[in-house]
Amino acid sequence: MKYLEDFFPGQIFEFRSAPLSKAQIKEFAAEWDPQTLHLDEEEASKIHGSLIASGFQTILIVFKPVMHDLMTDVANIGGMGFDKLRWLRPLRPDEALDIRIVVDSVTPSRSKSDRGVLKYKIDARNLAGEVIFMTEVPVMIKRREGNTS
Amino acid sequence: MKYLEDFFPGQIFEFRSAPLSKAQIKEFAAEWDPQTLHLDEEEASKIHGSLIASGFQTILIVFKPVMHDLMTDVANIGGMGFDKLRWLRPLRPDEALDIRIVVDSVTPSRSKSDRGVLKYKIDARNLAGEVIFMTEVPVMIKRREGNTS
Repeated sequence: MKYLEDFFPGQIFEFRSAPLSKAQIKEFAAEWDPQTLHLDEEEASKIHGSLIASGFQTILIVFKPVMHDLMTDVANIGGMGFDKLRWLRPLRPDEALDIRIVVDSVTPSRSKSDRGVLKYKIDARNLAGEVIFMTEVPVMIKRREGNTS
Repeated sequence: MKYLEDFFPGQIFEFRSAPLSKAQIKEFAAEWDPQTLHLDEEEASKIHGSLIASGFQTILIVFKPVMHDLMTDVANIGGMGFDKLRWLRPLRPDEALDIRIVVDSVTPSRSKSDRGVLKYKIDARNLAGEVIFMTEVPVMIKRREGNTS
């Protein structure tokens, strides 16, 4: 189990996302974000050259390996939010993404000695190396027991 | 169809989200965010008094009525991102949310005369009136044709 003390600025974690099929993009969009660019291949292609995924689905796909492979192993009290989240380029069908987390800061809480805030930056690149998504993430996590002075 | 000119600072749009069942919270978490607080009712209850929804699922539930009822009627070029997104309190099973959008600014693009940026704040309150989620959203939308000077 990883605690606040196990993180340090500059630390890197890397992941790869699973590609989305056209059917997965359309199915998600129909329920959550029914816009033409995510539902209608012909119309989307005129503007973007292909169907493109909803930004909400992009968030899920980027964070899926983070939540499965990293955060289940962290003494996580809770995600606090996202800062400066940006969809910079479209996510297209059948594209895997290279995802990189860089730890920004590790700050013990002043008011609660058992916890602190980990801040990290995350970005996702397509196979052409273009950043398609980025955000900054503050997460509240526990300090190791006995290390609470 | 709504264009950039149809929005003004202070304009308000209101929605209500559908409640999530315990089964929906667990099913989503198993795929996207497999943490104990979203999967194990007994463990979650010790800390939060009930199972709580993944923050990713909270985002989807808050924006579902916005995307279905407002944005399908807007000449939307694309969402740009989220700023200062915060999960302030947990979303619990069977809670509907009152969602409010307040338009912050409407800014024609300097470089592209056919479009501009709409910025709005959105928050979601539970039935006790507590804000559980908020963020700021910049969206690129079209200007009405012929109004591009």
